[in-house]
Amino acid sequence: MFDLCVKNGKIISSKTVLEGELYVKDGKVAAIAAPGSNLESKNIIDAAGKYLMPGVVDAHVHGGYGTPERETFEAVGKAAAAGGVTTVLEQPLSVPITVTEEAFLGKKKEAEERFCVDFGIWGGLVPGHLEDMEKLYELGAGAFKSFMCRCSNYPTTNDGQILEGLKILAKFGGVHAVHAENDTLIQELADRFRAEGKMDAKAYLESHPPYSELEAIQRYILLSRQIPGAKTHIVHCSIAEGALEVGRAKMDGIDISVETCPQYLALCEDDLYEKGGVAKCDPPVRSLENVEKLWELVKEGAIDLIASDHSPHPFEKKVVPENDFSKAAEGVTGEQTMLPVILTEGVHKRKLPLTKMVQLLCENPARRFGLYGRKGALEIGFDGDFNIIDLDKEWICHGKDMYYVNKHTPYDGKHMKGAVEATYIRGRLVCEQGEMKVEPGFGQFLAMKMRPSI
Amino acid sequence: MFDLCVKNGKIISSKTVLEGELYVKDGKVAAIAAPGSNLESKNIIDAAGKYLMPGVVDAHVHGGYGTPERETFEAVGKAAAAGGVTTVLEQPLSVPITVTEEAFLGKKKEAEERFCVDFGIWGGLVPGHLEDMEKLYELGAGAFKSFMCRCSNYPTTNDGQILEGLKILAKFGGVHAVHAENDTLIQELADRFRAEGKMDAKAYLESHPPYSELEAIQRYILLSRQIPGAKTHIVHCSIAEGALEVGRAKMDGIDISVETCPQYLALCEDDLYEKGGVAKCDPPVRSLENVEKLWELVKEGAIDLIASDHSPHPFEKKVVPENDFSKAAEGVTGEQTMLPVILTEGVHKRKLPLTKMVQLLCENPARRFGLYGRKGALEIGFDGDFNIIDLDKEWICHGKDMYYVNKHTPYDGKHMKGAVEATYIRGRLVCEQGEMKVEPGFGQFLAMKMRPSI
Amino acid sequence: MFDLCVKNGKIISSKTVLEGELYVKDGKVAAIAAPGSNLESKNIIDAAGKYLMPGVVDAHVHGGYGTPERETFEAVGKAAAAGGVTTVLEQPLSVPITVTEEAFLGKKKEAEERFCVDFGIWGGLVPGHLEDMEKLYELGAGAFKSFMCRCSNYPTTNDGQILEGLKILAKFGGVHAVHAENDTLIQELADRFRAEGKMDAKAYLESHPPYSELEAIQRYILLSRQIPGAKTHIVHCSIAEGALEVGRAKMDGIDISVETCPQYLALCEDDLYEKGGVAKCDPPVRSLENVEKLWELVKEGAIDLIASDHSPHPFEKKVVPENDFSKAAEGVTGEQTMLPVILTEGVHKRKLPLTKMVQLLCENPARRFGLYGRKGALEIGFDGDFNIIDLDKEWICHGKDMYYVNKHTPYDGKHMKGAVEATYIRGRLVCEQGEMKVEPGFGQFLAMKMRPSI
Amino acid sequence: MFDLCVKNGKIISSKTVLEGELYVKDGKVAAIAAPGSNLESKNIIDAAGKYLMPGVVDAHVHGGYGTPERETFEAVGKAAAAGGVTTVLEQPLSVPITVTEEAFLGKKKEAEERFCVDFGIWGGLVPGHLEDMEKLYELGAGAFKSFMCRCSNYPTTNDGQILEGLKILAKFGGVHAVHAENDTLIQELADRFRAEGKMDAKAYLESHPPYSELEAIQRYILLSRQIPGAKTHIVHCSIAEGALEVGRAKMDGIDISVETCPQYLALCEDDLYEKGGVAKCDPPVRSLENVEKLWELVKEGAIDLIASDHSPHPFEKKVVPENDFSKAAEGVTGEQTMLPVILTEGVHKRKLPLTKMVQLLCENPARRFGLYGRKGALEIGFDGDFNIIDLDKEWICHGKDMYYVNKHTPYDGKHMKGAVEATYIRGRLVCEQGEMKVEPGFGQFLAMKMRPSI
Repeated sequence: MFDLCVKNGKIISSKTVLEGELYVKDGKVAAIAAPGSNLESKNIIDAAGKYLMPGVVDAHVHGGYGTPERETFEAVGKAAAAGGVTTVLEQPLSVPITVTEEAFLGKKKEAEERFCVDFGIWGGLVPGHLEDMEKLYELGAGAFKSFMCRCSNYPTTNDGQILEGLKILAKFGGVHAVHAENDTLIQELADRFRAEGKMDAKAYLESHPPYSELEAIQRYILLSRQIPGAKTHIVHCSIAEGALEVGRAKMDGIDISVETCPQYLALCEDDLYEKGGVAKCDPPVRSLENVEKLWELVKEGAIDLIASDHSPHPFEKKVVPENDFSKAAEGVTGEQTMLPVILTEGVHKRKLPLTKMVQLLCENPARRFGLYGRKGALEIGFDGDFNIIDLDKEWICHGKDMYYVNKHTPYDGKHMKGAVEATYIRGRLVCEQGEMKVEPGFGQFLAMKMRPSI
Repeated sequence: MFDLCVKNGKIISSKTVLEGELYVKDGKVAAIAAPGSNLESKNIIDAAGKYLMPGVVDAHVHGGYGTPERETFEAVGKAAAAGGVTTVLEQPLSVPITVTEEAFLGKKKEAEERFCVDFGIWGGLVPGHLEDMEKLYELGAGAFKSFMCRCSNYPTTNDGQILEGLKILAKFGGVHAVHAENDTLIQELADRFRAEGKMDAKAYLESHPPYSELEAIQRYILLSRQIPGAKTHIVHCSIAEGALEVGRAKMDGIDISVETCPQYLALCEDDLYEKGGVAKCDPPVRSLENVEKLWELVKEGAIDLIASDHSPHPFEKKVVPENDFSKAAEGVTGEQTMLPVILTEGVHKRKLPLTKMVQLLCENPARRFGLYGRKGALEIGFDGDFNIIDLDKEWICHGKDMYYVNKHTPYDGKHMKGAVEATYIRGRLVCEQGEMKVEPGFGQFLAMKMRPSI
Repeated sequence: MFDLCVKNGKIISSKTVLEGELYVKDGKVAAIAAPGSNLESKNIIDAAGKYLMPGVVDAHVHGGYGTPERETFEAVGKAAAAGGVTTVLEQPLSVPITVTEEAFLGKKKEAEERFCVDFGIWGGLVPGHLEDMEKLYELGAGAFKSFMCRCSNYPTTNDGQILEGLKILAKFGGVHAVHAENDTLIQELADRFRAEGKMDAKAYLESHPPYSELEAIQRYILLSRQIPGAKTHIVHCSIAEGALEVGRAKMDGIDISVETCPQYLALCEDDLYEKGGVAKCDPPVRSLENVEKLWELVKEGAIDLIASDHSPHPFEKKVVPENDFSKAAEGVTGEQTMLPVILTEGVHKRKLPLTKMVQLLCENPARRFGLYGRKGALEIGFDGDFNIIDLDKEWICHGKDMYYVNKHTPYDGKHMKGAVEATYIRGRLVCEQGEMKVEPGFGQFLAMKMRPSI
Repeated sequence: MFDLCVKNGKIISSKTVLEGELYVKDGKVAAIAAPGSNLESKNIIDAAGKYLMPGVVDAHVHGGYGTPERETFEAVGKAAAAGGVTTVLEQPLSVPITVTEEAFLGKKKEAEERFCVDFGIWGGLVPGHLEDMEKLYELGAGAFKSFMCRCSNYPTTNDGQILEGLKILAKFGGVHAVHAENDTLIQELADRFRAEGKMDAKAYLESHPPYSELEAIQRYILLSRQIPGAKTHIVHCSIAEGALEVGRAKMDGIDISVETCPQYLALCEDDLYEKGGVAKCDPPVRSLENVEKLWELVKEGAIDLIASDHSPHPFEKKVVPENDFSKAAEGVTGEQTMLPVILTEGVHKRKLPLTKMVQLLCENPARRFGLYGRKGALEIGFDGDFNIIDLDKEWICHGKDMYYVNKHTPYDGKHMKGAVEATYIRGRLVCEQGEMKVEPGFGQFLAMKMRPSI
């Protein structure tokens, strides 16, 4: 007797789109069966005309820990559930930053109390805390982040420190990830523009040129090459050329991955000019030509995964203060919109195969960050995390419908095609038609289990 | 009520190795369920301690059509079944060559009568028959082969003809594949060695230098780049550098794949000197260093698939006549040994993950050659083709145990680890412990269904 | 007492443009002195307002030996002198082809009798004559040509034969050169176009696509890599991408050079459509974009030398017969116009430095083909071969003013800037304002002295 | 009537080695004439059996301005003259650093009073002084140096500042040059080694790994690509791979050059272990394998020029203090030994052509740094700066024979082959057999005349 059966739908995996029945028992996928199998089950859901896909694993979320005016675990968890994301990986840029055991445990405690989706917690590779990483790893932090450039509330890690950190991580197998931009290139440009009185969105874009990101990626790859066993990752790559550099490194056997985000696939420079601070992120959105090149790379598999980099700020901080665009807070919201944007811009507009979508949003992030085995696929024994999708449903995105503390989105007013009808985690309905069905605290902590590659 | 249940084994897919139960109904995979599900089934097999894997899809088989002294469909089919291969793709180098509707239908008829495993049939892209390809494609030939160098019984196709052929294939989506060697480089070297009285195995190797293969691969890639929508494939690539060239082309978005064979992964030059004609194939086996580089590429995924290139000859033709090694027939047997060799040399000796093995032997060849959906994976609705594997069983390979018409193998006397216990096709036991359980003619014809990429 | 002094001019070398006095004695450069040195000299020429440059060394000339209806040594020699070319290197595509001692000596004899400029004679690397090369080398043939594609009166040399030939040449240091086009690509395209009734200039261009040249260059470079000590050369490269491939090979230490021709730097597709057969050459002229890229490479030094590939035909053979452009004879005239075209299109229009011009037209061809020490520069002890140039003189080019047997030119009507006022060879005035001052037979034979690189 | 004639010698230029007579008048090369010309001259020198070469232009000299305990212009000038160097380019790492008009003029004044060879003066591109560069350029500083890593007495310039500086330089054409090492990689390694108690020469080498230099070169090239018209240069490149990166950038049309030094061509790690602080320089000497690769690149022309990076320190600062090798002063002496080392290790030991030597030591540095026209070659009108060389003379190098303030050299005891017999500047004998023939102050200031490339 199974607990739950979803029948009559099409099940999307990273390999196939099949008509079939999905069975869950004790929160785990317990069977996949041919249509008409009608195995005995306590509950039966009819997904006729709909698609089932594994729950999205969002590897890059800023959940607002310590800065409730930006976001809260409760809010972002609801947004995740409403957007088909069943697992979020919290980034370490909280208050305090997640680089000590104490900070990690504090964050974990609050997350366990407030998240309604499952979650993992990243650590950080920052100066002064290299030796803390192993402890955090034991606690379940499988990935460690560094900023190559400055960041308001997170220490910059220089090349030498990154290299030392990579040596330490290679011993136990943790993944290292960087925000790759060249700090001084950006600062000098920004200072000069400011001195010239140029402080608008265009000046912002031009002071964050593609080459400042490319340089950092190229440099980081060179570092990655030096440490046998290093597992490295580039977060929110905004430029096609950067992903190509990663591809070349992979051909040499380097264990490196690259992520992009919906904002780099759906927005371009004109959107920044039009939408202003709400669309400001770092790296910034790029040219339309770059958007199309990124999609090509996404379709070819040259980009490993897509994450939201959900990074909200109060609306007043996104408004350009004193006509100085550089002072608008950086980071866009994206948790609730990630999957719909990929369905709309990818699947419908650019023929992104559904299987490829599942690789990018579910399987690959779960694999890269040590969750595969529980998350990322609807395989026997995996958690029963899935979405029921109405692939052809058309709707308009509105900021007010977001669960975020700050209800803005760069996609406000956007015509979407493809909607999440219902989201299940461990076999339990957590959200249906945008309405929450579980309480905060339903979410469970996930340790990221890496295996050392040396 | 399912027809068949295999329980207590570990199921290997291209993504996971899971404990689970496999259910078959009407020849198709009907359910995969968690251990202990115990769904109702007519027959139950206990695979405790064993592994289940999808049946191997061998994309490169010379079945001996028209040359029964070399091989027969009956014999090679049995060898396939005994070796865990449930689908074979017949190459067009038969008598007559498979480049006309008549030849295709004649071969298909005999195959349907004599094969005990499922099969597809390649066509050929050869001068004078470019216009026949579309008809063959309609009949089910999804892949078309050309020789860039001379071959005793198959016409050479020159670069211009290849390019014209690629244009035609791009219209309906057929895959083109080449035997990539530079003919004149080989001939000139061979002629000179012969003139110098050098006719031993060493002269043979030196007259087939790695660069003659690399040159042809490089040239073929350049051709592939010219035709939008071309799908191309390099058969039996013996050199690591060749696979790297293919990898570079893929990064540019070219739809090209590359195959290697067990003989290039398990044999090297010294084996040729020791075993003589029995180990002679074309391209020849290479250096030990190259073997290890190929394995690295196999593990990294730079090589798409492994096929046997089973190409037998009567033993007397493999004996070196008149002390002239070049006169020994080219081609090694490999159908029955392919999977055991990969288990022994790959899984056990070089830590090839089982999931990666399934990609290389099952999923990728099925995908590339239009069989995915029925073959290559144990997904719901796919054919119930699988092997039960004893991963740790050790045994000695003997030529006399082969089902081939010509019972020789370059692995004679080799210590193997990993054995095929039983092979099922469409839910039916076809071979158990090397004993055939079905009659010739059990095998079914498979049309290769490609989709045009333009 | 010197024999000759040229004073008041500016002397162009490959390194500098200097005011100075040039002194010749016994046919050799005997002194270069500062202006006003006024050393004692029998004859004094005032070159005030003019430039002196070394005589041009044209490494690629089809002098018409055995085909007087195409060209004669007497005519082409006069054209050379009138165009500032003081040394020509005769190509082996004569009747008979220059691949035997007899053919070489016959050609040499006629050349000595009829040429009014100095000359060297290439041999050929063709099947059946590999063993003749060493003898020809001893006789003074330092360079050996092969066709990778078919040619009406010269055998094609296949890859294997080229490789064997390179091994032989490496022993004594001869340079090998190829006409690099892929034969079958061209033939198949041409056949198909013909079958489709497309036989105009556009069909001709499209049946000789850039990739057919690129493929052959790429293949030839791979061959060059195999033979330590090989010195190789690509004649009349028409595509920028081809020169870039050569550049990459040089970075790996390969001793390879590349030549382009005025027709690829001054003419483009539209010229072919406009001028018809008179502008038909092989490889054909390319796109305007390619022209500009070639100029960039010329200026950067990525192209080693410029040669005329003077290859005349009777006018009636250049007229398109039966509306089939492919039947028009291939090859353009270019001996008399080479230097003026480079002055006009390079020096004046694209700021090609005069020093770079001397490298491309004088020093580099002399170095590459074993004449440096006598030819290619106005160094002490070198032959007193030079031109007096009026850099700013403007004039119109007319076919009727050519010394060729067939007085057509693709530059007919072209506005030129820069003119050869007088040409001296070994200190002797050979042509002044287009008027010949020496008799046929004044020209001397030059042995090409190579040094083996292994 | 010429002032000076050198006859019977062989004159080496960048193109040829010729028997000839060199005539000087009013300090300038006034004629080059064939042997036996015997033009009238006030003084005649018989160089029978000897070679004449242009005076060496050493583009990278630390003359000790403001730090007389390290070096003085008088001493280094004498060393230069004794070593065949007729022009030195003073680096800006003086006290004060040469980044202001005042500092430049102060240095120029002292140099004019104390140098006995001709000299130019570099400026610096350092933070806070970008706007001073144009003024320095007008004063004659054609090249501007930055440190990408820290340096004891010279500010580090970050990537952003370099980019801004390149924009400024591109306006008037100055060359920018960097010391390319990644600072934080070195510091982190050094700190860790120190923490582990590793402070010997090996730790020093390992804390300055080749990749820290390669990274900086790669990064600098990326910066160079961003600014049209930028002219960039990498000083003292110690690694072959770095020069290859520069070569790749050149193929893309980037105007970048690269220099190496005798210490990287003649010394390797074992020398550092053996000789200690006297052989310590930054970047450090590398592996023997790298030495040979560098020589290959030097011979192929992939390295543009060789400079001494003469950078002396008092002997007591070169002695390893407190057993901490990192505290030994960095920089080796090299002014007086540069040419003999290249003659010994290059010309004699590795068949470096004499013409190539002249390119690397004379012509190329003069060209790159705006002195060509006066320096770098023995062309008419150029300064009469030359050396008479006894190519086969063998001798032992001794530190005590150096003119340096600090008479140590890493070549102490080295067997040399090839000696400078006499050095002339502007036609005047300045040093003969190591004995000075002019007074301090004979040297003249040279403005470096660049032309903007945009």
